[in-house]
Amino acid sequence: MSKLPNITTSIFSVMSQLANEHGAINLSQGFPNFPEDERLLQISERLIRSNIHQYTPMAGLPSLLEKIANQTLKQYGRKVNTASEILITAGATQGVFTAINTFVNQGDEVLILDPSYDSYEPSVLVAGGKPVRVSLNDDYTPNFNRIESAISTKTKMIVINNPHNPTGRIWTEQDFEALETILEKHPQILILGDEVYEYITFSQPHISFNTRPKLVERTIIASSFGKSLHVTGWKVGYLIAPEHLMFEMKKVHQFLVFSVNSFSQHAISEYLDVVDFSEVSKMYQRKRDLFQNLIKNSRFELMPCDGTYFQVVNYNQISNKNDVDFAKELIVNHGVASIPISVFYNDATDRHMLRFCFAKTDETLIAATEKLNQI
Amino acid sequence: MSKLPNITTSIFSVMSQLANEHGAINLSQGFPNFPEDERLLQISERLIRSNIHQYTPMAGLPSLLEKIANQTLKQYGRKVNTASEILITAGATQGVFTAINTFVNQGDEVLILDPSYDSYEPSVLVAGGKPVRVSLNDDYTPNFNRIESAISTKTKMIVINNPHNPTGRIWTEQDFEALETILEKHPQILILGDEVYEYITFSQPHISFNTRPKLVERTIIASSFGKSLHVTGWKVGYLIAPEHLMFEMKKVHQFLVFSVNSFSQHAISEYLDVVDFSEVSKMYQRKRDLFQNLIKNSRFELMPCDGTYFQVVNYNQISNKNDVDFAKELIVNHGVASIPISVFYNDATDRHMLRFCFAKTDETLIAATEKLNQI
Ligand SMILES: CSCCC(=O)C(=O)O
Ligand SMILES: CSCCC(=O)C(=O)O
Repeated sequence: MSKLPNITTSIFSVMSQLANEHGAINLSQGFPNFPEDERLLQISERLIRSNIHQYTPMAGLPSLLEKIANQTLKQYGRKVNTASEILITAGATQGVFTAINTFVNQGDEVLILDPSYDSYEPSVLVAGGKPVRVSLNDDYTPNFNRIESAISTKTKMIVINNPHNPTGRIWTEQDFEALETILEKHPQILILGDEVYEYITFSQPHISFNTRPKLVERTIIASSFGKSLHVTGWKVGYLIAPEHLMFEMKKVHQFLVFSVNSFSQHAISEYLDVVDFSEVSKMYQRKRDLFQNLIKNSRFELMPCDGTYFQVVNYNQISNKNDVDFAKELIVNHGVASIPISVFYNDATDRHMLRFCFAKTDETLIAATEKLNQI
Repeated sequence: MSKLPNITTSIFSVMSQLANEHGAINLSQGFPNFPEDERLLQISERLIRSNIHQYTPMAGLPSLLEKIANQTLKQYGRKVNTASEILITAGATQGVFTAINTFVNQGDEVLILDPSYDSYEPSVLVAGGKPVRVSLNDDYTPNFNRIESAISTKTKMIVINNPHNPTGRIWTEQDFEALETILEKHPQILILGDEVYEYITFSQPHISFNTRPKLVERTIIASSFGKSLHVTGWKVGYLIAPEHLMFEMKKVHQFLVFSVNSFSQHAISEYLDVVDFSEVSKMYQRKRDLFQNLIKNSRFELMPCDGTYFQVVNYNQISNKNDVDFAKELIVNHGVASIPISVFYNDATDRHMLRFCFAKTDETLIAATEKLNQI
């Protein structure tokens, strides 16, 4: 008996492999193809001989916990306790899985917005919980009537990913207020806030759960350095949560992974002294604008992109194929790899939408859009 | 409601912290305090600027998978399929957790020998399963009558850790034959073989599940490079299992962690071309002998140590205190940290036994035993 009977090979693997086979430009899986920051590489080189290759403490390297606390204070004005409210995880994916598998019991319901990142639902299923999908509006903004109607006495948690992968939408002040009004009536519901793209927003600043006093006492925030520091392969993420929630997550973490790669924790801890997170959004805003300008005269239609490094487009003017078939055609015939948005829906809703990752060198974006413009 | 109501701070953290506070020599948590191999450090330095900081494929870096397959063939004569039978995990702990949480469903029973490493039981509890403890014999060898009696129709898995942490015992040919005879009658029971100390055995060679054709088709083998390559902080482990089992574990792994630290995978993959695993046992045998010789005239009594880098001793001649209190006294009054064996028992059985880690420089072992000899 399989706990995940419907899971097949990850779409990220499928598309990246097809892209490789056909020598296509890979704008599918979300990772940068430009060099890491020279300062981070220099720190890393120096650290190799610093005796840092044995276990860090279970909750994470103390200096890294402290830097995260400082950064949270600086960025969001929230003081978190280094010893009791932060946990270093092997990427945000492990953080999300740990949060869900700590609190979701057999039969508990978890609200997941639709479309959404692909790891939430399987994490709930492994925990024995029941994912309850709530459709976003057609423009990918949250629909609070639907959220409220989906709540039952069994609702244990709601997962909110902001900035939102795959759609690039971000939550507004009004969205948060609407959520606060609803959840006031349901004090038992926990929030899992996946904020891995917190440093990549454009039209307005990111609103973190760290800044929502009415919600934060029941919120587990998952984030990661992979996206904001351009080292997706390092797999260093973190959870922030009030002590009573963190206490339970640490127990699971201890036996799920115990600790996280020591070398990467040390390097990131030093790098946090020099990195300027405000540069990250600027850099990606420039890339978003470049990508948008380069294909604005194509037959692809751009959706709004307020955050993340993903641009959603529709191809209504080009093809009637479903998005998975069209994404494959785009690789095989036109040399550009993307992700079909239907894979992020519970029921594979096809709205003729593709997601392109613009965390790429300008040359790559120019080369890719030249191909897209010819279609 | 907590999934792990009885878990408190890890004994490894408690003892290491107390050791730090009192400036004690730390022979508690299992990690080496000698420098990493110069060749591994050189490889690591060179790799920093090799564009290897983004996601590896989900199942692991292909070259590392291949090296593991080659090593398994060379060491055990078993040919495993690189693409379908190996999975890189964030340490063996994550491998063990993933295996258990993939196959153990609500109410399933899992046989765990007593005493045993501390992560198995909580991993079963998180999965909603029921740990069934089976006592080892007094000399820490397996008792097959007890194992057979503990099997029920609900038994889903048996966890076998060989070489055995904390006791340092290893399984013999006769042990494996006895297990084969029992399990022949119970084709539904899976085996989780934790072999992280496979390259650290002394009196006789390690017998791996890889060499047991009658068992291997239902066995998940967990191992790690942390122990054998002296980089416990890197958190790179692996699972080996037949395709039908691996297929299900990969699904969980994909959403539990997705992939493992890329830099460490690359460095280990290159290092495997030059490392000689037979040197690992020799080096640790020399350290075991040194440690044993240095305290053989003390009032501690040595238990047999056939593998792992742990030596168990009893202190019957020294104190009537329970082992947790005595271990604390040993830190506070005598400056040496160990692990009390009772923490590895389900019911905290106290047999006046302590575990010392001898993965330490000769100087550390000499300094520690000087203190132990004075007691
Ligand atoms: C963990 S692989 C997927 C990377 C990613 O976040 C994405 O492409 O959406
Ligand atoms: C994962 S921390 C514990 C290290 C270890 O294997 C041990 O000391 O037994």
